[in-house]
Amino acid sequence: MAPTTTTKTGQPFDRSQLDQLLRRRMFFTQSFEIYGGVAGLFDYGPPLCALQANFIDFWRKFFVIEEGMLEVEPTILTPHEVLKTSGHVDKFADWCCKDPKTGEIFRADHLVEEVLEARLKGDLEARGQAINANTGAEEDAKKKKKIKAQATAVKLDDATREEYESILAKIDNYDGQGLGELMTKHNIKNPATGGDLLLPVAFNLMFETSIGPSAQLKGYLRPETAQGQFLNFAKLLDFNNQQMPFASASIGKSFRNEISPRAGLLRVREFLMAEIEHFVDPEGGKKHPRFAEVADVELELLDRDVQLSGKTTTTRMKIGDAVAQGIVDNETLGYFLARIQAFLKFIGVDQTKVRFRQHMANEMAHYAADCWDAELLTSYGWIECVGCADRSAYDLDVHSKATKTPLLVRETRKEPLKVEEWVAEIEKKKFGPKFKKDGKTVEAAVEALSQELREKLSIDLKEKGKIEIPVEGVGNGTVELPKELITIEKRTRVENTREYTPNVIEPSFGIGRILYALIEHNFWTREGDEARGVISFPPIVAPTKVLLVPLSNHADFEPLIQRLAAKLRRLGISNRLDNSGASIGKRYSRNDELGTALGITVDFQSVKDNTFTLRDRDTTKQVRASEDEVIAAIQRLCDGSETWADVAKRLPAFEGQEVD
Amino acid sequence: MAPTTTTKTGQPFDRSQLDQLLRRRMFFTQSFEIYGGVAGLFDYGPPLCALQANFIDFWRKFFVIEEGMLEVEPTILTPHEVLKTSGHVDKFADWCCKDPKTGEIFRADHLVEEVLEARLKGDLEARGQAINANTGAEEDAKKKKKIKAQATAVKLDDATREEYESILAKIDNYDGQGLGELMTKHNIKNPATGGDLLLPVAFNLMFETSIGPSAQLKGYLRPETAQGQFLNFAKLLDFNNQQMPFASASIGKSFRNEISPRAGLLRVREFLMAEIEHFVDPEGGKKHPRFAEVADVELELLDRDVQLSGKTTTTRMKIGDAVAQGIVDNETLGYFLARIQAFLKFIGVDQTKVRFRQHMANEMAHYAADCWDAELLTSYGWIECVGCADRSAYDLDVHSKATKTPLLVRETRKEPLKVEEWVAEIEKKKFGPKFKKDGKTVEAAVEALSQELREKLSIDLKEKGKIEIPVEGVGNGTVELPKELITIEKRTRVENTREYTPNVIEPSFGIGRILYALIEHNFWTREGDEARGVISFPPIVAPTKVLLVPLSNHADFEPLIQRLAAKLRRLGISNRLDNSGASIGKRYSRNDELGTALGITVDFQSVKDNTFTLRDRDTTKQVRASEDEVIAAIQRLCDGSETWADVAKRLPAFEGQEVD
Repeated sequence: MAPTTTTKTGQPFDRSQLDQLLRRRMFFTQSFEIYGGVAGLFDYGPPLCALQANFIDFWRKFFVIEEGMLEVEPTILTPHEVLKTSGHVDKFADWCCKDPKTGEIFRADHLVEEVLEARLKGDLEARGQAINANTGAEEDAKKKKKIKAQATAVKLDDATREEYESILAKIDNYDGQGLGELMTKHNIKNPATGGDLLLPVAFNLMFETSIGPSAQLKGYLRPETAQGQFLNFAKLLDFNNQQMPFASASIGKSFRNEISPRAGLLRVREFLMAEIEHFVDPEGGKKHPRFAEVADVELELLDRDVQLSGKTTTTRMKIGDAVAQGIVDNETLGYFLARIQAFLKFIGVDQTKVRFRQHMANEMAHYAADCWDAELLTSYGWIECVGCADRSAYDLDVHSKATKTPLLVRETRKEPLKVEEWVAEIEKKKFGPKFKKDGKTVEAAVEALSQELREKLSIDLKEKGKIEIPVEGVGNGTVELPKELITIEKRTRVENTREYTPNVIEPSFGIGRILYALIEHNFWTREGDEARGVISFPPIVAPTKVLLVPLSNHADFEPLIQRLAAKLRRLGISNRLDNSGASIGKRYSRNDELGTALGITVDFQSVKDNTFTLRDRDTTKQVRASEDEVIAAIQRLCDGSETWADVAKRLPAFEGQEVD
Repeated sequence: MAPTTTTKTGQPFDRSQLDQLLRRRMFFTQSFEIYGGVAGLFDYGPPLCALQANFIDFWRKFFVIEEGMLEVEPTILTPHEVLKTSGHVDKFADWCCKDPKTGEIFRADHLVEEVLEARLKGDLEARGQAINANTGAEEDAKKKKKIKAQATAVKLDDATREEYESILAKIDNYDGQGLGELMTKHNIKNPATGGDLLLPVAFNLMFETSIGPSAQLKGYLRPETAQGQFLNFAKLLDFNNQQMPFASASIGKSFRNEISPRAGLLRVREFLMAEIEHFVDPEGGKKHPRFAEVADVELELLDRDVQLSGKTTTTRMKIGDAVAQGIVDNETLGYFLARIQAFLKFIGVDQTKVRFRQHMANEMAHYAADCWDAELLTSYGWIECVGCADRSAYDLDVHSKATKTPLLVRETRKEPLKVEEWVAEIEKKKFGPKFKKDGKTVEAAVEALSQELREKLSIDLKEKGKIEIPVEGVGNGTVELPKELITIEKRTRVENTREYTPNVIEPSFGIGRILYALIEHNFWTREGDEARGVISFPPIVAPTKVLLVPLSNHADFEPLIQRLAAKLRRLGISNRLDNSGASIGKRYSRNDELGTALGITVDFQSVKDNTFTLRDRDTTKQVRASEDEVIAAIQRLCDGSETWADVAKRLPAFEGQEVD
């Protein structure tokens, strides 16, 4: 059940208020709204575009530049053959069930979840317990209406209640058959009409198209950026001077034809991802050279065993311990989980609303050997925002086989490897005349002899002066070889190079989901001004860093504003002028809604002595200082080297009131 | 004919050498290469990704932030209805002709162009003139082979030669019928086989897909970002507090299913665009408030009349004069042409290889009222890199009509507008009893009377006390109205608000094409080291700004390198370490190929006194100074406030040789 969330200031979170703000201030709009809109497609407006650009910029610094990753940009259009090989054509599907009467199509797992949650809620109502609604009132009403056919205050017996809760804890682990059985057993129908539904069938989530004028080359819009990175593996390794380990990274759009997307920005058909493919030697436990730096970082972990037991209790532990105890499989996976958490913290995600959940066996993508999701708590529940999968050698292997292209690492062994082996050698000159047309077949049979058999045969050869080996299709199926024709002996071979297919650890960021969770985590309202929201983005991602507010449109302010704007711009600090006629207080509060971090007021005192007030969005406190001091403070606040508390301690407070 | 190009140092440009460099150093690769590749799709590797990220970052600063544009991110997936309304479903097509025997499909205009150019080349050969090949030798051989069926050293008579040249000058102006006539008249066949081709038919360039599980919602991948911006017009105007003019902007992928893309990065099926939609009041000549700032900027213009006369001679003139003389239609269009040129100059496009070409009537997109392309000269000829179209009110009008949504500006008139008009008023009480069921029809007929007719009728009414008006379907088609039933008089109405549909000026940047031209313009080789290239990107876009080169792997260098790297990173200056075993000279020249702008050498002297040498890529000159001085110089070189000449004047030269 969607948990009750509160704002960072402890107020109950009101989703409909935030939603109104985000639409009113054009963070986003429904795409093609004037044409009636298309489900699962949203356009970003100016504030969300700026937030996203800052996110990408910081992501690139935090991961690509900091760790020397190789950025690539593969295409979105992908031919059928590639995604057939990768397994997506056959397996990248959700289970959906159709109402044969209305033609409506439901995503099976979501339907089961929705109906059981509604029944649990109805049970609570019947038991007279208050329901904590954190969805907006309007939406709640809609939802209630939709599920009325199956819910509304019906008491459940305790065993049923428990069974429902256990199903919900592992809902992601059912396949199509399992979901079908649940629907039959628990009598799950079309929630709107009560009509029967057909059993779940797989629906492939890829958008199909055809490439070129002759319609012969079938293709898809990629469902992930990863495949394009794998296909470039050999060139990337070359670019990296054949050095391992290394990572590639890609930021770009991917597409999934969701069955019936709701949940706003969280479930969309077109979305921006940032994916890292870290290639690592599978031998030696997938160690990571920088693991020591993060070993003491604590994470909230929810492993697969806990979930399969029907529970969702997390355990807080150091990532070093989690790897040591085998809860997280290896250092590289652990390193990235810690890095992901650090990144989320930097951009302002509430650290009490982060957990790492391990995928259960059936839930895992077809390519994954292990997977942990960074989930963020929102009013829609815990949402998968960053996946961190161990894809093993799956992808490189299948593409290599399909294309007969080696996708592997060749490295010189530090110590040459000595391999002891039984070598069987035939006497070619005598072989041909003896076996004639069967010569090649017998030769192949000799080559195919296993090491064990060779050892055994070497004794026969020594003792009896001849051996018998099975050769299908020659004589009666057995061929006799005297010692004149064959020798078998143990030899030592020295291997100087080693070849292996790297494994891949893949941190995969769903940017839109993270941005939405970030907004929810930072939204609150001021006491006494509950109608207006504040979004407390850290300066590093705030869509606009600084608002410039002249007291009025007086011509004297103009050159000061221009100079401040130019200086900030040169420092890469985005700023916006609000010279509308509204009061200063109103101008600030309008920009608090957009998450603008700081404000500079330009007044007549500024004209006289070139001092300005600097305002902090979260506290609404102000300080007053010279132009240079104000700009230096802004720079430090934006690069994170100072907090507002530091600035307020250093610079004199300004007590002038904001006039509303 | 593709003109001969030279490098910025005056060497003949060798495309195959550059192409090899770009592939070897992984600027790009053919997408899905290990699967055989797909024409028109390319993956960007690390250097091109970094170049593109720097381009975007600077574009956003130069246009979006500098001019306060509203950035939006509409979706790529677009439903059929939207693109039907915009005209793309019916008109966004190229002419293609099929070889019925081989099944091969050609783009008609490119085919005609290729064949006529080959014949002109053959004519030159026959006349014994040397041909200036600037395509790579290998590619040239391929091309020659392909066209041998129709070319190879055949002399043309002078009239034919002239006719071909005239056709080529206006090749973009032929429609399907025109191209068909050219093919028939000039006997143009399949160049490879000599086989007959079918007449040109239109092939729509949009990729089709279907949205949602039921396959009922047909959609396309957008061919431009513009439509998503237009659909959001009302919200954007609102976001801008109803202030005009304003611009929206969007950076994102678009898709065109090119018929048979060749020409490498220049003609691709999936590409990144940056588009601006500047909304302007159509009244008052589309003035621009900042036009004065650019009026004296000189541009090379090639207008449509010159092209239609069969010539391609440009005229250099001030944009102020071009607008005054009506060559460029209005100030806003002119302003953006100048801004586009300034942007291209900043990022390092060779200013002698830029021209602005006006579209001819048939060439123009269906939505455009006027269009100028910024074309850049490359070894493939003049390439359209930035389009700057005046789309008039076309798009807002059609979407507004199709959706019955007002997409317009309402503004309070400074001076109320007095409108004198003839008002016809009926006596409602007497009207009903007299006309009964025909009342409404007659009333509508009165309302539909034109101003001219009303004026005439008012005289009749005064003179005869009655009038006759035509009313279809009532009586014999004429109805008599006595003055008791109607009055007609002149009145003055005051209009306080004005409504209008804005016009749109659209600068549209094809990012991949610009980047490719930029690379060609900045590629050259050093005398004595012709095997290796240098790419002289300006620091502002260089994929990596600074290379850090320790003399050796000596442990003492490590902390210095770390400190330099961290300091540069904090300043937002990307840097890379090359601590491979290669000589310093080799390490530098490897990075000259990637366009790395500057290099810092760390040697034993650095360990002693914290001084470093700073190397300039283009001159290979070095200076030596303290850490602070070196970093300050780098910062100024990167933000453009100093050139290398300035730095070399200020800081002492370092004469140590690069050891190869």
